[in-house]
Amino acid sequence: MVVPSEKNAPHEVVIIGGGFGGLYAAKALGKTNVNVTLIDKRNFHLFQPLLYQVATGTLSPSDISAPLRSVFSKSKNTKVLLGEVKNIDPKAQQVILGDEIIPYDTLIVATGAKHSYFGKDNWKEFAPGLKTVEDALEMRRRIFSAFESAEKETDPEKRRAFLTFVIVGGGPTGVELSGAIAELAYQTLKEDFRNIDTSEAKIILLQGGDRILPHIAPVLSKVAIESLQKLGVVIHTQTRVTNIENDIVTFKQNNELTEIPSKTILWAAGVQGSALGKILAERTDVECDFSARVIVEPDLSIKGYKNIFVIGDLANFSHQNDKPLPGVAPVAKQQGEYVGKLIKRRLKGHTLPDFRYTDVGSLAMIGQNLAVVDLGFIKLTGFLAWIFWLIIHIYFLIEFDTKLLVVIQWAWNYTTRNRRSRLITGKAVRPKTVNNSSHSPTTEKKQPAKL
Amino acid sequence: MVVPSEKNAPHEVVIIGGGFGGLYAAKALGKTNVNVTLIDKRNFHLFQPLLYQVATGTLSPSDISAPLRSVFSKSKNTKVLLGEVKNIDPKAQQVILGDEIIPYDTLIVATGAKHSYFGKDNWKEFAPGLKTVEDALEMRRRIFSAFESAEKETDPEKRRAFLTFVIVGGGPTGVELSGAIAELAYQTLKEDFRNIDTSEAKIILLQGGDRILPHIAPVLSKVAIESLQKLGVVIHTQTRVTNIENDIVTFKQNNELTEIPSKTILWAAGVQGSALGKILAERTDVECDFSARVIVEPDLSIKGYKNIFVIGDLANFSHQNDKPLPGVAPVAKQQGEYVGKLIKRRLKGHTLPDFRYTDVGSLAMIGQNLAVVDLGFIKLTGFLAWIFWLIIHIYFLIEFDTKLLVVIQWAWNYTTRNRRSRLITGKAVRPKTVNNSSHSPTTEKKQPAKL
Repeated sequence: MVVPSEKNAPHEVVIIGGGFGGLYAAKALGKTNVNVTLIDKRNFHLFQPLLYQVATGTLSPSDISAPLRSVFSKSKNTKVLLGEVKNIDPKAQQVILGDEIIPYDTLIVATGAKHSYFGKDNWKEFAPGLKTVEDALEMRRRIFSAFESAEKETDPEKRRAFLTFVIVGGGPTGVELSGAIAELAYQTLKEDFRNIDTSEAKIILLQGGDRILPHIAPVLSKVAIESLQKLGVVIHTQTRVTNIENDIVTFKQNNELTEIPSKTILWAAGVQGSALGKILAERTDVECDFSARVIVEPDLSIKGYKNIFVIGDLANFSHQNDKPLPGVAPVAKQQGEYVGKLIKRRLKGHTLPDFRYTDVGSLAMIGQNLAVVDLGFIKLTGFLAWIFWLIIHIYFLIEFDTKLLVVIQWAWNYTTRNRRSRLITGKAVRPKTVNNSSHSPTTEKKQPAKL
Repeated sequence: MVVPSEKNAPHEVVIIGGGFGGLYAAKALGKTNVNVTLIDKRNFHLFQPLLYQVATGTLSPSDISAPLRSVFSKSKNTKVLLGEVKNIDPKAQQVILGDEIIPYDTLIVATGAKHSYFGKDNWKEFAPGLKTVEDALEMRRRIFSAFESAEKETDPEKRRAFLTFVIVGGGPTGVELSGAIAELAYQTLKEDFRNIDTSEAKIILLQGGDRILPHIAPVLSKVAIESLQKLGVVIHTQTRVTNIENDIVTFKQNNELTEIPSKTILWAAGVQGSALGKILAERTDVECDFSARVIVEPDLSIKGYKNIFVIGDLANFSHQNDKPLPGVAPVAKQQGEYVGKLIKRRLKGHTLPDFRYTDVGSLAMIGQNLAVVDLGFIKLTGFLAWIFWLIIHIYFLIEFDTKLLVVIQWAWNYTTRNRRSRLITGKAVRPKTVNNSSHSPTTEKKQPAKL
């Protein structure tokens, strides 16, 4: 199967997606005698774990991005192609872009995940998620515009809605967003307004399960809760969001319905595999799980196609634990490296033992000086965890040339409590339906936006 | 005239526009016993002289922006208001925003300039200008997308059009843009593509007058021309652009018409006063010049209204030289400071001599190690001028807290020839009409976009 299509012609590897999975696969295959084509919709790799810092005004998009072409400029066997893959033909061994067809010998699909609103796609306009640079800039626009609108608003109820920030989802993104917004309201912006007192802002974190950060040890969840509460975040666990509409979040807790009027609702809850996973699954008769992730074999290939691999957030790899590996950067990175290595081995007639994820631990930033780190054998909290978090992220960034600047920027922002990057850019595009008496949930009549 | 409207009530100064003029006027009035309201459409001050570095991927928007609220967080007499002024009522002494009316005792209008296509507004979609952050990001998108499209294009004529960059206007912005794009094509991106040789790109600078940088000494213009040519820029002087349509620039030189097919045409030619100037002029019966700038008195007030000042790019101040002062940052800064001081003096019953601009010299960056500086008594070129350019800009930035990082970023980019900020973001929004045979100017039929 993994044999050059023409004698002596180099083996053609096509990688779809320049996230952690695709990037590290391409890196593993760099400067070898295979031809690599890395296809991405965007011209840059995005360091997604720090995207929340763009959304909250600490970093700029380019601080956490690396142009794909410059990452691979020295790997002459690697070609970066800007484009969107529309289809895959596993029989003919081709990927189909708009008007272009790219043949492959081996295919790696690493297109990641997108938001999932659990079927309630109409929530999206009121509660945007955080996956792309544009998402982050839209969140940033909403967060800082909310303070500006509150400054202008004279009606106390409406002002309260502008100063209420609801974050849905208590995983790392939700925790990091709420911590950062709390610091913004209670520290950074404290002196900046004349009509409002930003310390009156409410930051509310809604979590479905019985604790936040469910992927780390319960003792650390507890620390995280205490740290967030100290920062001023109100946390509700065991909640179920039942509706998001007209700037009101409705959630159920202990069979009681609560409604929170809020002009800034941020979605950090569900994700699902990107659309290409489903297309691939249909074309290959491979199964997807309930989150639209493609079920993969122990070597990350898919059933019946030894030359097609699915890695990263798009893959459901369930051969190691009782549940699939989580959709985090280290998993994608290790899977990318593994597949790269496996392809090289196969071309030499060798093979490789099945993929095993080496758990590097879990961590979440809560605020300045505050983080939680779970390495299994050791658990860190507070300042030490914060330093550790910083080092880990710097270590990751070191692979790109963004490293030095981002570190300096952090140090600078840390010393000055600065949020330089709080530009409100772009247009208010949300086709918003606002309820005039947005605190009165009985009125259902939709009216045009007033923002 | 400049008397508090109510006894003992503080004097109300309203400043429209947070550019250099408005910002420095507000700074001059900070921490005094007047009330200052600074109104801007955006929540940040933009350091426009460096905007071309955002357009060409060296800096991020937030590197050259300062949030207005943080600039004035310590000046408790200063209120920042995010909004767009729609009208001015000079009799009632009010400015009118959407649904808000702000009374003033003294008004400072500093809303700057916008592009002028000399009545050919249809050129705009093919040749965007550079005034706002969004403009810069759109230029960046077009420049980097052009290289990407060239990489994919197989037709040599079309590929050539993608690799042809035409900059219209040989002032500082045009010179700085062409130098930066030349460095991009011939140095930074050299190793990044596999199908194209970026050094085959053509960068063409079109200037109407007989020399580029007409505001500096002729000897320096000559140096600038030589430096740009060394970088690879083709310069045409004494040209008149007669048409920009369907990705073709047509210009006249020595009575000869030339057509250049180019997918990236950048406008750095004309500017005109912003719309509010015209509204003010109509309401006060004051004259505007041919560039829609408001004619001001020797003390920067307008005729008949001692309590209304117009400063910066929007003002035509012709009391010093035979021609109006140029629309550059130092003029706006000094005018802002002057008006601030004058208001403080007047409130004490004093006055101030007429405004005089202290010429701090002119300068333009051409490329790394290359600039021209004209201080009148001394003229610098090459590396020395480049260092001087850097110091001057750092000195300016020092007033905000962006200073340190931008300096480090420059140093970093300088050492590594890095263009980290070359993200292609946003959507291709131009409602483009592309001529299928864009190199054949005879075909006039418009077709839908193919980009």
